Amino acid sequence: MERIPILKMGDLLLVTIQVDMHDRLAMTLQDDLTSRIVKDRARGVLIDISALDIVDSFIGRMISNTAAMARILDARTVLVGMQPAVAITLVELGLTLHGVQTALNVEKGVQLLKQTAD
Amino acid sequence: MERIPILKMGDLLLVTIQVDMHDRLAMTLQDDLTSRIVKDRARGVLIDISALDIVDSFIGRMISNTAAMARILDARTVLVGMQPAVAITLVELGLTLHGVQTALNVEKGVQLLKQTAD
Repeated sequence: MERIPILKMGDLLLVTIQVDMHDRLAMTLQDDLTSRIVKDRARGVLIDISALDIVDSFIGRMISNTAAMARILDARTVLVGMQPAVAITLVELGLTLHGVQTALNVEKGVQLLKQTAD
Repeated sequence: MERIPILKMGDLLLVTIQVDMHDRLAMTLQDDLTSRIVKDRARGVLIDISALDIVDSFIGRMISNTAAMARILDARTVLVGMQPAVAITLVELGLTLHGVQTALNVEKGVQLLKQTAD
């Protein structure tokens, strides 16, 4: 069964999105991620989208929703690795990714989560 | 263009394989990874295969070759997240993953690389 792996790094979880998201895969990811936040007592979630050339409104909304779910489980979400073209598209589509912080790459995302955890 | 993202974490690189590897994708990964080892001065490479239900002889050989390339660039490779069924298949196929160390998950892989780096 197709599912996106969730990697644990200390008290952070890392999700790398490499494939086109469809409804069921997005649902599975949200289920898996919320379970893992609770099970692993994660304080932060890093979502890496460096492999995505295109982010449409479906993925944008999925990321916003995932971040909202993480937040009420007391974990913060940082979106990392966004390509320039994706940033342009998001602004042009008017998608604000409400409640999601961004960082240039995984390293800077980890720094961001560690800084604000204190 | 399809390619597998390579994430930098300190002096380590992390590759998560989620999709079926075909020849061109494997070649692209090897090119990208060797370039990144040099560019980022990486000391270790973590290859996560937790999303793979099946590892055939092609992927097995690709991982061995990648590890051999990394080694001559002075970086060590640790394969993490192997599923039990994959371990069974590898042994039954007689694939030894020569020169590749394994660890249960990313955290333990990082520990392994840090321990032996000193």
